[in-house]
Amino acid sequence: MKCRVCRGAALIDLRRHNANFCADHFVRFVQSQVGKAIHEFKMFDPEAKILVAVSGGKDSLAIWHILNELGYDADGLYIGLGITDYSDTSAVFARDFAVAHSLNLVEVDLDDTYGFNVPQGARAAKRVPCSACGMSKRHIFDRVALDGGYDVLVTGHNLDDEAAVLFGNTMHWQTDYLARQHPVLEAREGFPRKVKPLIRLDEREMAAYCVVVGIDYMLDECPMAAGNTHLRYKDALNLIESGSPGTKAAFVQKFLAQAAPIFADAAQESGVELAPCEHCGALTPSGLCAFCRLTARATGQPVELVPNPRLTS
Amino acid sequence: MKCRVCRGAALIDLRRHNANFCADHFVRFVQSQVGKAIHEFKMFDPEAKILVAVSGGKDSLAIWHILNELGYDADGLYIGLGITDYSDTSAVFARDFAVAHSLNLVEVDLDDTYGFNVPQGARAAKRVPCSACGMSKRHIFDRVALDGGYDVLVTGHNLDDEAAVLFGNTMHWQTDYLARQHPVLEAREGFPRKVKPLIRLDEREMAAYCVVVGIDYMLDECPMAAGNTHLRYKDALNLIESGSPGTKAAFVQKFLAQAAPIFADAAQESGVELAPCEHCGALTPSGLCAFCRLTARATGQPVELVPNPRLTS
Repeated sequence: MKCRVCRGAALIDLRRHNANFCADHFVRFVQSQVGKAIHEFKMFDPEAKILVAVSGGKDSLAIWHILNELGYDADGLYIGLGITDYSDTSAVFARDFAVAHSLNLVEVDLDDTYGFNVPQGARAAKRVPCSACGMSKRHIFDRVALDGGYDVLVTGHNLDDEAAVLFGNTMHWQTDYLARQHPVLEAREGFPRKVKPLIRLDEREMAAYCVVVGIDYMLDECPMAAGNTHLRYKDALNLIESGSPGTKAAFVQKFLAQAAPIFADAAQESGVELAPCEHCGALTPSGLCAFCRLTARATGQPVELVPNPRLTS
Repeated sequence: MKCRVCRGAALIDLRRHNANFCADHFVRFVQSQVGKAIHEFKMFDPEAKILVAVSGGKDSLAIWHILNELGYDADGLYIGLGITDYSDTSAVFARDFAVAHSLNLVEVDLDDTYGFNVPQGARAAKRVPCSACGMSKRHIFDRVALDGGYDVLVTGHNLDDEAAVLFGNTMHWQTDYLARQHPVLEAREGFPRKVKPLIRLDEREMAAYCVVVGIDYMLDECPMAAGNTHLRYKDALNLIESGSPGTKAAFVQKFLAQAAPIFADAAQESGVELAPCEHCGALTPSGLCAFCRLTARATGQPVELVPNPRLTS
C-alpha cells in the first residue's frame, strides 16, 4: 500500500477517495479538506476572530489544531456540563491541549454559572439529556461568541454527524429542518455565525488525524447518549457505506447541491417575530427563552433569581 | 397475547401498530389496509378490469388473493424470465394458485416470445441482471395491459419495497425520481395506469397473510438479486425499524404527504417528446425503444427481425 502522493509506505487507506496516504500526506490531505470546506462555503475570512466549541473529543480538538496550523486566530470554548466523570476527564483533555499549543481556552461551567448540570436539567425538564444538553450548549455558545466579539463560532461536526442529522430529518421528512440544514448558519440579530469546517471529513479520518499529529483526546462517548436514535442512524449509514464507499459523502453533498435549494424555496417564512428574553436578553419567540425556563426549573428558583452573568466580560 | 378485536388468542403482534390479532382478524386487518390504500389514493373503481403482475412470490399472490376476496375482477400476468430453476419453480406457484382459485392467468415467456432470457439479456447489454429484468417486465406489463384492455396494472410492491426505493432515491437525492415516486402512476398515452395497493403492509405481514390463508408461494429470493444495493437499503431500514417501530411506514407516508409535493413542484418538465418505437410501437424518446434494442443485442438479430407479437390478441 503506497502513498498516492509520494509512493512511500502508506499509513491509511481512504476507500471512498480510492486513495492511500503516508502520515505526512494524510495530514496535508485533512488540512486541505478543511481549507476546501472553508472556501467552498465561504465560512470566514483569514482575519476572522474565531471561537471553537471544544469538547475534549477528537473532532473539536482536531479542528482547533487545524485552524491553528492554517494560521487562523482561534480561541477555544469549553463548557463544563457536569456529566460526572465524563465531564471531568474531557475538561482535562481540553485544558492540556490548550496549554500544549499555547492557545486561549474560555471555560464556562454550567453548574458554577447557572446552578445546575445536564443530568439535573434533564430530570427537572423531563427531557432526554441530549435535549437539555444541546439547549444549554447553544445558549452558552451564542452568549460567549457575542459577548466576546467573535466573528464566527466553529463546531467540530464531521461528515458522519452531518449525515446522521440529515438522515434523521429525512426519515421524518422534516421539511423545515431540511430547508435550514447547511454547514453555514448565517448570523442573525442575537445569534452568531456558526460553521462546520469538518463537513468533508469522517470520524475515522478525524481519529487518524489526532493519532498522527499526537492529539490526546477523550475516547469515551458521552454516557448519556448511548442508544439514542442519532447513533442508530450512524449505524444504518455505516452499513450502506461499507457496501458502497462514498455513499455517505454523496448523501450530504448531493443534498446540499440538489435538494436543499428545493426545500429552501418551498419553506414558508415562519413569520415568528423574535424578541429579547425578558430575563437574559437572548432572542426568543416567547417572553422567556427556553434556556432560562430550563434553568428556573432545574434550580427550583424563581426566574428573576436565575443567574444572568456576562460570561466573557 | 390477545387479539385487539375479539380478545381471543393472538397469532401475530404488529409492533408498529401496537396491536395483536388472531388469525381471522389479522386477515381482515390486511384486507382493510389494502382497501384503505385503494381508497386513499383513488387507485381504481369497483368495476375496473385489473391485471395483477404475478411472480409466484408472497406479495403478488397475496394481492391477487385479496383483490379477489374484495370482489374485484382481476386477471394475473406471469412472465417467464428464464432465470434457471428459480423461474421454473415460481411459474408452478403462479399456475397452481390460479387453478386453485379459478382465476385467469396470462403467461408470457420472454425466451419463447423474444428469443432471449434475463441472464442472456444482461450479458449482451452489459447491464446488471436487475436492469435487463426490470426493462423486460415493464415492456411486457405495458403491452399486455394495453392490448388486453385492462384499466389498471397492479404490482405487489409492499411497504418495504417502496421504502427501500425511496431510501435509494433519497440517498442519492435523485430529485426527478422523488418527484414521481407515488403509489399511483397515472396512465399516459402508450402506458397503462399502475398502482401499488400493498403500500401500507410490510413483508412480514404479507408472509403471515399467505401462511394464514393458505397460499403456497415461492420462498426463495431471486438468485440474481443477491447482494444488490436495494437489499442493503432494506437492511439499513430494518435496523432503524427494530429500534423505533413505525419509522419505515412514517418515512413513506410523510414523504408522500410532505415532501413529494415539494419535489413535484420543483420538477422541470422534461420537455422530451415521446414517439412510437419504430419497431414495436411502444412510446420512447428515441427511434427504437430500450427493450427492442435490448432484444436485438441479446438475440444477435437485426432489429427488423426481432419478434413483435400482439401478446394477448
